[in-house]
Amino acid sequence: MTTPDPDPQPAPRGTSRRGLLGLGAAGLVGLAGGAVLGRATAAQAGPLAVGSSAVGPSASEAHAFYGAHQAGIATPVQDHLHFAAYDLSPRATREDLVALLQEWSYAAARLTQGLDVSATGAVGGNPAAPPDDTGEALGLPPAHLTITIGLGSSLFSTGDSADSDRFGLAAQRPAGLAPLPPFLGDALQAEWSHGDLCIQACADDPQVAVHAVRNLSRTAFGRASVRWSQMGFGRTSRTSAAQATPRNLFGFKDGTRNVLGTEEDRLAEHVWVGEGDEPAWLRGGSYLAVRKIEMQLEPWDRTSLAEQERVLGRDKAEGAPLSGGTEFTEPDFAAGAIDVASHVALAHPDHNGGATLLRRGYNFVDGTNALGRLDAGLFFLAYVRDLEQVITVQRALATDLMNEYVRHIGSATFAIPPGVAPGGWVGETLLA
Amino acid sequence: MTTPDPDPQPAPRGTSRRGLLGLGAAGLVGLAGGAVLGRATAAQAGPLAVGSSAVGPSASEAHAFYGAHQAGIATPVQDHLHFAAYDLSPRATREDLVALLQEWSYAAARLTQGLDVSATGAVGGNPAAPPDDTGEALGLPPAHLTITIGLGSSLFSTGDSADSDRFGLAAQRPAGLAPLPPFLGDALQAEWSHGDLCIQACADDPQVAVHAVRNLSRTAFGRASVRWSQMGFGRTSRTSAAQATPRNLFGFKDGTRNVLGTEEDRLAEHVWVGEGDEPAWLRGGSYLAVRKIEMQLEPWDRTSLAEQERVLGRDKAEGAPLSGGTEFTEPDFAAGAIDVASHVALAHPDHNGGATLLRRGYNFVDGTNALGRLDAGLFFLAYVRDLEQVITVQRALATDLMNEYVRHIGSATFAIPPGVAPGGWVGETLLA
Repeated sequence: MTTPDPDPQPAPRGTSRRGLLGLGAAGLVGLAGGAVLGRATAAQAGPLAVGSSAVGPSASEAHAFYGAHQAGIATPVQDHLHFAAYDLSPRATREDLVALLQEWSYAAARLTQGLDVSATGAVGGNPAAPPDDTGEALGLPPAHLTITIGLGSSLFSTGDSADSDRFGLAAQRPAGLAPLPPFLGDALQAEWSHGDLCIQACADDPQVAVHAVRNLSRTAFGRASVRWSQMGFGRTSRTSAAQATPRNLFGFKDGTRNVLGTEEDRLAEHVWVGEGDEPAWLRGGSYLAVRKIEMQLEPWDRTSLAEQERVLGRDKAEGAPLSGGTEFTEPDFAAGAIDVASHVALAHPDHNGGATLLRRGYNFVDGTNALGRLDAGLFFLAYVRDLEQVITVQRALATDLMNEYVRHIGSATFAIPPGVAPGGWVGETLLA
Repeated sequence: MTTPDPDPQPAPRGTSRRGLLGLGAAGLVGLAGGAVLGRATAAQAGPLAVGSSAVGPSASEAHAFYGAHQAGIATPVQDHLHFAAYDLSPRATREDLVALLQEWSYAAARLTQGLDVSATGAVGGNPAAPPDDTGEALGLPPAHLTITIGLGSSLFSTGDSADSDRFGLAAQRPAGLAPLPPFLGDALQAEWSHGDLCIQACADDPQVAVHAVRNLSRTAFGRASVRWSQMGFGRTSRTSAAQATPRNLFGFKDGTRNVLGTEEDRLAEHVWVGEGDEPAWLRGGSYLAVRKIEMQLEPWDRTSLAEQERVLGRDKAEGAPLSGGTEFTEPDFAAGAIDVASHVALAHPDHNGGATLLRRGYNFVDGTNALGRLDAGLFFLAYVRDLEQVITVQRALATDLMNEYVRHIGSATFAIPPGVAPGGWVGETLLA
């Protein structure tokens, strides 16, 4: 998954990239019809001209955009996140949605290779027009940027009336795609929840991730707007055996038992929607559950080491289960050293019918609240084959000792379409 | 300035570090008196025991904490910032202030070397007590962390009454240390302005910078609390010839003419409070001006390339002045190609009596506002020998074409004491 793609999707022939950037979207849709566009491009050959941006020295720092699965799930977790949830405009049509997903795919194929959002870039276009690319990533390497596109349940219908199925997608809605049910202790806020679409941009340079979300938001102009967004840092999990297990803001290692991108069997069992699963259009894709979790750091920091370790069920220094061994030793729940209400006990697959999540969360610090405390926590991202896996684990955590120190303030779920071949676009299996 | 210091300040003999962490501060002050503490330690030898944290492979990633000047000014700019402004408790005494600055210095000397905040660290202490260190940086290298401590004007007195000089510092207040005067177009908010003290923590890993501010805030518990804080990324200036000039969120290179850490003559002229300057206690120090500047990215992104370049007075691709040449060519204002109201013209030292700033700002993205627009901008940090330099430049910018796209929402000024020798503490020239 780390091979650079030398040939991003070509721009549609005879269509200025300007028209694709939302600044002239109405004209574009009128010109060719969105759905035709993506398929037409698949038949084209020829590499896309490189924009004004010097591609860094680092093709090795680029993840392929094209593939069986979208990048940003099983690929190694990067250091920084910019996540954005979008709502479609009340006036947006199915054609607008198709065109947007095509243009996002085109842009993502370029951005992930360290290119400008379009061939005319930040400075190569008409001086009398706004630049296609906002420019702040000019000269920066790809920084392992991945762009992962998701579809929210509200896209499929917003109610029971015929009017609510404005994109004609109700019949194709995955049976399990819905907002997560209420959990004990939820303190959800609408401003951190839901969305018709999402973009997860991860990179080893936050400026690269911010640049991606900013330019994709520009692309969406007039058709979709950002509902909420989140910056994250210091990944709280690992998806590669080469990555050390990072620590969350409670100071504990997080993600020790995570599904790794090399574990094909576990990915097939727990993460990818499989060949026998429904709906067919989502096969090779996944589901994403998002939770914005405030961590009450000051009370936590005043808790004794022994109590912190009891809450987690692991020791703080090494991350080993309190039943003994090293970080990667399986916990021995029968030995009695691990509290039954500890986080490790309640979240363990053995206690949840095998439910396993691919976690890809990030720490966040949004500043300081009115009490002078860090407004900080965990932006939890989990990829699963079925959202029921998340619901099972989250229900089990109802009695988690950790609940005294965390508060869930945001929640969202998305269907993550499969990856696409060069020339394709994310969502084509649903919308083409 | 990049040589690691193998011998951070030893902990005071016979004093548990627990007592220094604010959790037992009252006891500590009662024990020895704050002012005695710092000087006593200077007489001690012997290296401090290393805590539980493995020091990374990277002594080369550590900046010395001790030196003639505080690190974090002329040292090469790191990629990430966590800045915090603090207010002292209404009950805090001069002894509390002294003890806090001593404990901050002790902790900063350790943290910058990749050590835990104390020798007992995140896990080495009494299991029945909260750990001294919050632990999320365990195992991380120093990441070039610098911790720079500043003193706000409100520390020196808050009014004309005798009561307002609660720390007995009014007579030592630098004549030029005051909040910046109002500027045309200011939209300042108290929640982003001022503070009795500040910590600028910069590092190449945001988790390391966040860990530093979090643990120094813990140290301050009961004596000072965070008034506001700010995360930043993607430095918007350079202070080393080895660093490429980065781009700000307008997509333009920023800091081309910045004062470099190797330019001793320019540093002496523009940044360091000199041997002949008053007050004597600040010699070797500097002044810091902070401005939180919102950037209106969406209107900017809809502006033509030609207009963007007219506003800046430089071309977007290379950063060359519009009068021609390359990034480092001096602008030729007489040639007529550069608008007299452009940013480069108004900010240029030739038009401001030579006023020159050492800029060390960062981009910020605080999320999305109610309109779905990025809540983003420039967290401007400038170090100067005299705040009058900042006032001169900011007044000149009153007619800046860029003002249509920016809004100043926060402002603060701090005196930055000189650096200290091993065993010393920041602020000792004022308070000892």
